[in-house]
Amino acid sequence: MEAAAKIVSRLDALGAVSEAAGCLTRRYATPALRQARDLTQRWMEVAGMVARVDAVGNLIGHYAGAAADAKILMLGSHLDSVPNAGKYDGPLGIILALACVEQLAGRRLPFAIEVIAFADEEGSRFQTSYLGSGVVAGAITEITRPELRQAMREFGGDPDALVTCQIPPGKLLGYAEAHIEQGPILEQKNLAVGVVTAIAGQSRADLIFEGRAGHAGTTPMRMRQDALCAASEFVLEVQRYARRKKGLVATVGKMTVEPGASNVIPGRVALTLDVRHQDDAVRLAAVQHFQKCAAQWTTVGDTPTVQCDGAHVARLRQAVRRQRMRVLEMVSGAGHDAAMMARIAPVAMLFVRCKNGVSHHPAEAVAEEDLRVALAAFSDYVHEFV
Amino acid sequence: MEAAAKIVSRLDALGAVSEAAGCLTRRYATPALRQARDLTQRWMEVAGMVARVDAVGNLIGHYAGAAADAKILMLGSHLDSVPNAGKYDGPLGIILALACVEQLAGRRLPFAIEVIAFADEEGSRFQTSYLGSGVVAGAITEITRPELRQAMREFGGDPDALVTCQIPPGKLLGYAEAHIEQGPILEQKNLAVGVVTAIAGQSRADLIFEGRAGHAGTTPMRMRQDALCAASEFVLEVQRYARRKKGLVATVGKMTVEPGASNVIPGRVALTLDVRHQDDAVRLAAVQHFQKCAAQWTTVGDTPTVQCDGAHVARLRQAVRRQRMRVLEMVSGAGHDAAMMARIAPVAMLFVRCKNGVSHHPAEAVAEEDLRVALAAFSDYVHEFV
Repeated sequence: MEAAAKIVSRLDALGAVSEAAGCLTRRYATPALRQARDLTQRWMEVAGMVARVDAVGNLIGHYAGAAADAKILMLGSHLDSVPNAGKYDGPLGIILALACVEQLAGRRLPFAIEVIAFADEEGSRFQTSYLGSGVVAGAITEITRPELRQAMREFGGDPDALVTCQIPPGKLLGYAEAHIEQGPILEQKNLAVGVVTAIAGQSRADLIFEGRAGHAGTTPMRMRQDALCAASEFVLEVQRYARRKKGLVATVGKMTVEPGASNVIPGRVALTLDVRHQDDAVRLAAVQHFQKCAAQWTTVGDTPTVQCDGAHVARLRQAVRRQRMRVLEMVSGAGHDAAMMARIAPVAMLFVRCKNGVSHHPAEAVAEEDLRVALAAFSDYVHEFV
Repeated sequence: MEAAAKIVSRLDALGAVSEAAGCLTRRYATPALRQARDLTQRWMEVAGMVARVDAVGNLIGHYAGAAADAKILMLGSHLDSVPNAGKYDGPLGIILALACVEQLAGRRLPFAIEVIAFADEEGSRFQTSYLGSGVVAGAITEITRPELRQAMREFGGDPDALVTCQIPPGKLLGYAEAHIEQGPILEQKNLAVGVVTAIAGQSRADLIFEGRAGHAGTTPMRMRQDALCAASEFVLEVQRYARRKKGLVATVGKMTVEPGASNVIPGRVALTLDVRHQDDAVRLAAVQHFQKCAAQWTTVGDTPTVQCDGAHVARLRQAVRRQRMRVLEMVSGAGHDAAMMARIAPVAMLFVRCKNGVSHHPAEAVAEEDLRVALAAFSDYVHEFV
């Protein structure tokens, strides 16, 4: 079978491995994830790799280099999914990496290749985003929640041996991840792939607007303190501000209006704010501005931008250019395992176009032709790595 | 006991009759409502009235006039409450009317007085607002819902005899209702009472704003169709428009944002709109304008304004003036039994100041001094009725 068609067929096969019938849900430490991991392990072994599973449940296939002590170029992504997911978010990066190894047809490179299938990136089951890569990168060394420890054990892992999963800094030549874009830019620019230069930092906050509830019929407009009007002004200010700063995205995604009756003036509105930009200073200035517009503000999270490695980005750019493709440098607005792996290795990411920019949804789709381009570029990057 | 103090003590006594301990909830056809009705009936009888209960469960006390065939001036309000209610909304109008009769001390007027305690105005138990007055006014003649029929029977009523509750047009000289304002205007104007000229018409609608859900990190601002931004613009337009038309109130009280995750651009917002004005033309023009601003609009209800009777309003104004009070004419933004009774009789309403404009809440409060003024004005209106 031709390589791109094989990728499609493997992604289809993985896409059928789900906790529930009729949709794709494959969360951490479930029988479905174990089944998907077993399937992936067999493909690794067929490709001439030696596979192991670490204490958190990540699967790692080792393809030896020319020398026994060769350094390692690690490739991969995550095998778990959100509930009711698409079949490309995660698995695409694993299966594409596998195909790169297969294309070597046994040829040894001056370095070893490892393909890693992280066991938990979405964190959909235990709210543990980046658990798989976090443990490998040494950011997570301990699990205390009993239900998570129990699930990990039932998955064949060992919550007391997480440090054994760590890869010491310096051991990896780099970590490279192919992933669907999960956004509409490549489609809009009519490009199959893009080269990621950074994973944008993110600020999250919970806001509350307090007004005064009142009877919708008996309270004159000028005597109202309508919390929803205040919140609406905020929503529009967020949009106005973000539109004016190139690359800035800011979103109010969740809003609750209380008391929430059609004949009662809203007395209280709670909402969430999500702000991202590749430049931490721009993001923090935006956050500061939004904070000034809000009465009650609780910071939920603040993650700085992770830069991809300059030399790796240059190699990936070169590899794309050699496919006679225009190179688009992009910032990832979504988080990825690569952001964790940047703690211990230089990282690179290749984005692949997805239909309508849709992700985390059964409608997630990638064209076979785009997989062909992605494989060619990614293989070029791996095979020519020196 | 002095009359106003007696009103306070009776309202306190009724306020203690509840379905649940620790709060006031007294919905239609509950044992609590029956207990409150029995208590009120005893007070009627002590005041020299002959009490009867009709087929829906309304309590009517008859105070005979000088002649046997005298026409009737009906006074009253409702005895039921919303869940976790205050003790004035409804009972105040009944107990004040009772006190008017007591002040006659047996003296006969050229007309009879009837005090009515409607069994269901709030409709909190069966979503049957104005059931009590609706049946009396002939607007409701039939009940088909089995659970409501059953409850009515258990309450001693007869769902098959509702027509016997009707009062034929022409039999009543009028229907007059005292009620707490449920709004902040009297307090702001520093007045104990106000004379109602109309019960405002109301339009209600359900609206939907559709956008396109998307990843909050990967979708550039200029490529978004954020349903919450569209909805926020609508909310502010409602506020802006209503503020510019005297007497108009318009409220978005309920809003649901979907999918409602902090990292997902809202794809769909559902909200409710409530519009009220004393002039139906103004209300309908507002509705037409708001409808133009909305993509998906479903009309939920349209109730025209009910005018209070000019002659009754003039009498009530006179009665208030005789208490050396400044007369404030007001429009009721909330609905009342009087709106139903207007189908069969000229109606009048007297509003009584309530603390902070709060109603439908345990914090509902009316000053004893205001009850004294209200009683004096209402009694004057009744006793001088010719």
